[in-house]
Order: sequence, then structure tokens, then C-alpha cells
Amino acid sequence: MSEHISSVETIDVRFPTSRHRDGSDAMNPFPDYSAAYIRLRTTAGAEGHGLVFTVGRGTEIQVAAVRSLAAMVVGQPVDELTADPGALARRLVGDSQIRWLGPEKGVVHMAAGGLVNAVWDLAARRAGKPLWKLLADLSPEQLVGQVDFRYLRDALTEEEALAVLRAAEGGRAERERLLLAEGYPAYTTTPGWLGYDDEKLARLCGEAVEAGYRLIKLKVGGNLADDVRRMGIARRAVGPDIRIAVDANQIWGVPDAIRWMRELATFDPYWIEEPTSPDDVLGHAAVRKALAPVKVATGEHVHNAVMFKQLLQADAIDVLQIDACRVAGVNENLAILLLAAKFGVPVCPHAGGVGLCELVQHLAMFDFVAVSGGTEDRAIEYVDHLHEHFADPVRISDGRYLAPSVPGMSAEILAASLADYRFPDGPRWAATPTGAAARKG
Amino acid sequence: MSEHISSVETIDVRFPTSRHRDGSDAMNPFPDYSAAYIRLRTTAGAEGHGLVFTVGRGTEIQVAAVRSLAAMVVGQPVDELTADPGALARRLVGDSQIRWLGPEKGVVHMAAGGLVNAVWDLAARRAGKPLWKLLADLSPEQLVGQVDFRYLRDALTEEEALAVLRAAEGGRAERERLLLAEGYPAYTTTPGWLGYDDEKLARLCGEAVEAGYRLIKLKVGGNLADDVRRMGIARRAVGPDIRIAVDANQIWGVPDAIRWMRELATFDPYWIEEPTSPDDVLGHAAVRKALAPVKVATGEHVHNAVMFKQLLQADAIDVLQIDACRVAGVNENLAILLLAAKFGVPVCPHAGGVGLCELVQHLAMFDFVAVSGGTEDRAIEYVDHLHEHFADPVRISDGRYLAPSVPGMSAEILAASLADYRFPDGPRWAATPTGAAARKG
Repeated sequence: MSEHISSVETIDVRFPTSRHRDGSDAMNPFPDYSAAYIRLRTTAGAEGHGLVFTVGRGTEIQVAAVRSLAAMVVGQPVDELTADPGALARRLVGDSQIRWLGPEKGVVHMAAGGLVNAVWDLAARRAGKPLWKLLADLSPEQLVGQVDFRYLRDALTEEEALAVLRAAEGGRAERERLLLAEGYPAYTTTPGWLGYDDEKLARLCGEAVEAGYRLIKLKVGGNLADDVRRMGIARRAVGPDIRIAVDANQIWGVPDAIRWMRELATFDPYWIEEPTSPDDVLGHAAVRKALAPVKVATGEHVHNAVMFKQLLQADAIDVLQIDACRVAGVNENLAILLLAAKFGVPVCPHAGGVGLCELVQHLAMFDFVAVSGGTEDRAIEYVDHLHEHFADPVRISDGRYLAPSVPGMSAEILAASLADYRFPDGPRWAATPTGAAARKG
Repeated sequence: MSEHISSVETIDVRFPTSRHRDGSDAMNPFPDYSAAYIRLRTTAGAEGHGLVFTVGRGTEIQVAAVRSLAAMVVGQPVDELTADPGALARRLVGDSQIRWLGPEKGVVHMAAGGLVNAVWDLAARRAGKPLWKLLADLSPEQLVGQVDFRYLRDALTEEEALAVLRAAEGGRAERERLLLAEGYPAYTTTPGWLGYDDEKLARLCGEAVEAGYRLIKLKVGGNLADDVRRMGIARRAVGPDIRIAVDANQIWGVPDAIRWMRELATFDPYWIEEPTSPDDVLGHAAVRKALAPVKVATGEHVHNAVMFKQLLQADAIDVLQIDACRVAGVNENLAILLLAAKFGVPVCPHAGGVGLCELVQHLAMFDFVAVSGGTEDRAIEYVDHLHEHFADPVRISDGRYLAPSVPGMSAEILAASLADYRFPDGPRWAATPTGAAARKG
């Protein structure tokens, strides 16, 4: 019998980041960066790793969703799966009973994404290439064949997608050389968490500029007077030439967003991120119109390609922020990259948390080589948290991500870390009140 | 110690409806109508019942979500909970870690809705009133206090909502009398499932008219030639004066929806329901513009009030279809009813499945008495499936829902049915391959 998937293991792993308020923002005051971690094994002993990023409570629901969908992966032939992960993505997303729970949104959609990404990781390992390179070596026709166009054709047809990819085909080799030599621009959110005091904010802003970043990001939306003071501190610390983005994490309604941001305009914010509900396409369009030239950015909570399509159709965003774990995996992100390229909107991926930097760098680098063909006004978010737990952690140099060279999607968490931080029974949780309560649960 | 919630029990209950293809449509060929069933108990022995409707596989994920959120309900004081279910709704929807899994969508949002509805059921039982009457007896100020306006104010402010409710206040008593005397209009989907043959379709259409229905609905989108033939059979069976709505259950992209529906226009369809992705606000607007005067209806998969707000802002729908279990319970549906009233769009609730008719009738009847004040061009969907399992089943007479009189939200499933259809270990599942496989896990 040919090689097939023999098991899908799913692990609830949580890092107690809330203890130091790393990652604190207006909507997420105390996140514990977590994941529903996925390990596929094949009958030949190969592995594929994936994860769905979460922020603590509720990770058990995400794990339950992955386990339910995993039944559609176990027993599948590996040659077929890895040759066409898009077929798996369609089956997982389209299951006629499970799709009632979405459709194409929330935990079932992210579970599909985690499994699809694990299959791409397996495919890239088998090919002996980092994922960005595997994707960049596919033909325009192969790439288009990986996208589900059912709900997208009013904005992007197969032919238009092919045209985008063919236009970028000529320069692929040169851009790959550039990528390997110089990496891909990063921006940093490290200075700007709401839980940090003014002294720490000023110090981290200065350090970010010294480290080579040209764009930093601050969390806003807690208290207006605090935001005005913090924006002033940051602007003085970095000077006029460094871009400062601000991020409200959905705290406002549309009128509040406009009022609040007008108070911060004097500090020249580069973009306002998640000014309101991620579902509010028309609200983002209204905010953008009212606040121009301040840009509007969103995406980390935008749940599928249909929503991104509308954000583009409605001229609602200046910056599109893909996330490696929110949508149904590499395939849906490929659709979103093609939509962004057609509409001429730059992509600045969301990252941070645990594993998001590792995963999403592959998509941005592939986009540069084979889709959009540029890095102008683009940067991948970078936060220096929890990379030490990864087998192939991101490498940052002079404010840029260096291209990964290890085969796969860089999703693998070290076995020792999984054992330590497994929830609720790993040693980092077992002795805590949270872990004890969950075990009793 | 005052009365508080002592336990939340959650049961996976599934009815094997797929065996007869009841409920078959273009996207759901073989649904097994199911629920994550919720039973609250108080220290004084009172109960509140709720459910989240599902269609088979994946119900275990919905159960996991309810169980996770239930921790925020157990131990709560009953007087406070039932006096202000809106406060609970805000806590459940706003949990800073769990909201990452939505936000405000998918299984975590529906879990919040199931729990909030169970609290309303408890509140109505304590008040000795059916839910529609409990709601219709609240003041405009009390009703507005139950709504979260954070993301809605660009379309509906607290003051505008109050104005809607005050305008309807004068006629409440007369409309309540009318409701009790005459019931609320229903329409029927019983004739039109895709899995039924032509003879059954014609027979059921005739029976629907004889039973007093003025609107029937057919499923479409499987095969165009079949749809043309079935639409012809239905139109001949009911004559020119009965409205025939059609429902594509999201099968099409925007251009397909327009092309396909133009072929059916000759049979005078009243509305096209779910022509494309429920997330595609702009797509629905484009379909509506292209197909007028055929109306566009959607809602059973519209995941929150922010999406309904946009469907109204974009002139994307002629008919708004609330669902009792999709959003975060009575409170969010109240917001949606207020939005619909402000925009002047009629509400025709989605129902069917298991329990949806029982629950949603309360919302439509409350709307008639205290919000929109009318039933013109409005009807609640009705399907004659599985009502025998309910303690207070819907009552239909001459094509109308009769107003429930038993205290509560009519969500209670009979204990014997819960025991019989509990998945996977109830006697109706234990001996089946599906049940055996699920128990083996």
C-alpha cells in the first residue's frame, strides 16, 4: 500500500504570556499565546506540522474542531494530498454538515487551515524546500489550480489570476536572488503594547530604530489622554522619518474611530489598524474616507477571502494584513494575495503571537517572488516572543526577515516545549490555579 | 445564599433525517438535524432550556463550545441574570481570550446564543409568560438597554431605536389581541426539498395551498434543467396567486446567481434566498440590482448584527431572515429587528430543522406587537419536522402560527427524545455504523 497519513495528533499548548502583559492591547488585555498544534504522521515516518494560533481560553474548542476534521485526513494517500492540497481544502471547507458551523469562518475554518497548512509543510519537507520556494517554483497554472474561485469571480477570474502570475513570471529568478541576499522588510510591534509604561515605551522605540526598523506600531484605544501622551513619546523617540502605525484592535464603532483618530492625527500616524469590527466592510470604508491620508489596515480577524474581496471592492483598506492561521490555509491565502495584487493594495502580514511570524514569512516571500513582485510599502509584522520554542525560528537582521532555508513551513515546535507547555497537564501549568481548575473541569 | 445557576448540562442530540432526504438542498444534500442542547438548573430547582441547531457532523464541536462558555454561567445569581440577560450576552461575546475564535461568529458565537436563550427561557418561565409576551411587556427603555450598540451606531443609535419602539407603543394591546386571535402568517418549505421526486413535489404543493399557505419555497441550484422543470410543476400546482420563493443555499457565485435566476424568472419567483455566500454583502447587492423585481432574501447564515447592518446599508436585501440560533441570542436578534424596522425591511424568519420554529416564533410575534407593528409581506418559515419531540410544539392553523401560551421560549425537548437520540450512545444511534464509529472515536 502506498504511503498514507497514519495519524493526526492535536495538542493544546499554551504559553502564560499574560503574566508579563506581553501582547496586551485594548481588546486583549491578558492574552496567553496558545495554539491547537497539529502533527501529521505518514506510514513512511514523514511528518507535517501545523498550528492554529489562539490566545488562551477556548483553545480546547479549537482542538476539538481540528480533531473532528482530522477524520477526513487520516488514511489519505500522501502523494495525492501533497500534489493537490487544494482538493483537501475544498473537502474540509465544503463538508455539507460541518459547514453549518461556519460557513468558512471561526473555529471550523481555522481548523481546516491548520490541517491544510500541515499538509503544505509535509509537501515542502518531501520536496526538500522551504514553503516559499516550493510555491515560487509552481507554474501560474498550478497556482491558479490551488484556488477556489466559487465566490470570487465577480472580482477575480481564473484568467485574471493567471495574468497576474504571468506578469510576475519573468522576474522570479532575480527576485529570488534578491530575497536570499537581503531578506524581506519587517516592522515591529514590540515597543507598543498597552501594558508597558512610558519609560519602557520610549526605550523600546529607540531600540527599534537602532535595530533597523522603519515602521513601528503602537496599540491604542484604551484611554484617549494616554494615547495622545504615548504617541507623543513615540514620535519624539523615533523622529519624523520613521513610520508609526497604530492599532485599535476593534475597540471602536465607526463614529468613535473617526473622532479618536482625529485627536492623534497631529503625530502623523501611518495607518490605523482594526479601527472597528473586522466584519464591517462598509464601516472601514467610511473610516478610510474620513481619515485620509491616514491609511486603514485590517486582516488578522478577517475570516475569509470573500470578506477581503469586499474590503478591496469597497475601497475600504490601504493595507491588507493576511494571517497564516485565520483562513483555510495556504490555498485561501493564495487567493487573497491574488486579489490584493489585482487591486494593487500592498500586503503587510499580521504576525506575532506564537508561530505566526514563522508561518506567514513564507507567504510574503512567495508573494514577492511570484505574485506582486515588490516590497515597497510592505513589511511583515515582527514581535520577539516565543521564537525559542521553534525548530526553525525566524531570523531577523537589520530590520528584515531572512529567507528560511529549512524544508517546510517552519511550524514545528520543539518536543520539549510541547511537553512543558501542554495545557492543562504540562509542568508549566500543572501547579497553577488555571491548570488545576481545567484538569478538574 | 440567593438562587443561582447550579449546573449547565449540554447534550449532543441528533435526528437521522438524512435517511429520508428531508431537508435536502444544494449545499446540504444529507443533513441530520441536530442540536447542542442546553439545560440550566438553578439551586431552587428551576430550569432554562436552549439549543444550538446543527446538521450532524460537528455537533460535538458546538457542544465543546457551549461547555467552555458555560463556566461563565454556573454560579451566577438568577435574579441578576434574568433581570438583565444583555449583561451576560456582553460577557460571553466579549471574553478577551475566547473572542479570538470569532469574534462574534461561528461556534463560539452560537454557543453564547444558546446560553443567552436558555437564560431568557428561564426568565420567561419565572415570569409565567411565553417569551414573546415577556418581551412585549418590556418598556422601550428596557428593550434598548438589552442591545449592544458598539458596532451599530453608524446605522442605528440608541435614540433611533427608542423612537422605533415608542412609535409602536400605542398599538401594543390591540396587536396582542389580534395575535392571540389570528396567529402569525407562516410559509412552508415542505414541498420543495431537492431530494423529493416530481410527483411528491406536485402533491405537496397542492396540499400546501389547501392548508392555507400563501407562500411556498423550493430549493434550487442543483441542476438548471431540473429547476426549470420543478419550478414549472410548482407554478402549475399552485396557480398564479400563490407566491413561490426559491432558495439556492449559497451554491452560486455572483455571476452564476444572476445567470441562473434569469432562466427561472418566467415562473415569477417571489424571492431568491441565499444566492451566494452569506458573507458577501456587496455580492447580494449586485444580485438584487440585476434581478429586480425578484426580491433577495438572506439571513440564516448571517453571523451577527454587523453583517445585517451592512446588508441594510448596502440595499442588498428585500427580506431579512433572522435565525434564533445563529447569533448571540435574543439580545442580538432584538438589535437586528430594530435595524430592520429602521430600514423598513420586512423580516421573514428562517426556521425548520429541529427547534428553530419553536424558538423563532417568539421573536416574530414580539416584533409584530412591539417593534415593526405589522405582518404585511412577512411570514415565518414552517417545516413539519420533528415537532413531536418538543414539550411545547408549535401549533399551525390555516397557514398561521398560533401564539404560544406556555411560559418560556418553547425550547424544551422531551426527556425521552433526548435519551433516544443522544449521539452517539442513544438507542437510535448505538446500533448504526455512524454511532459505533463515533463511540470508538
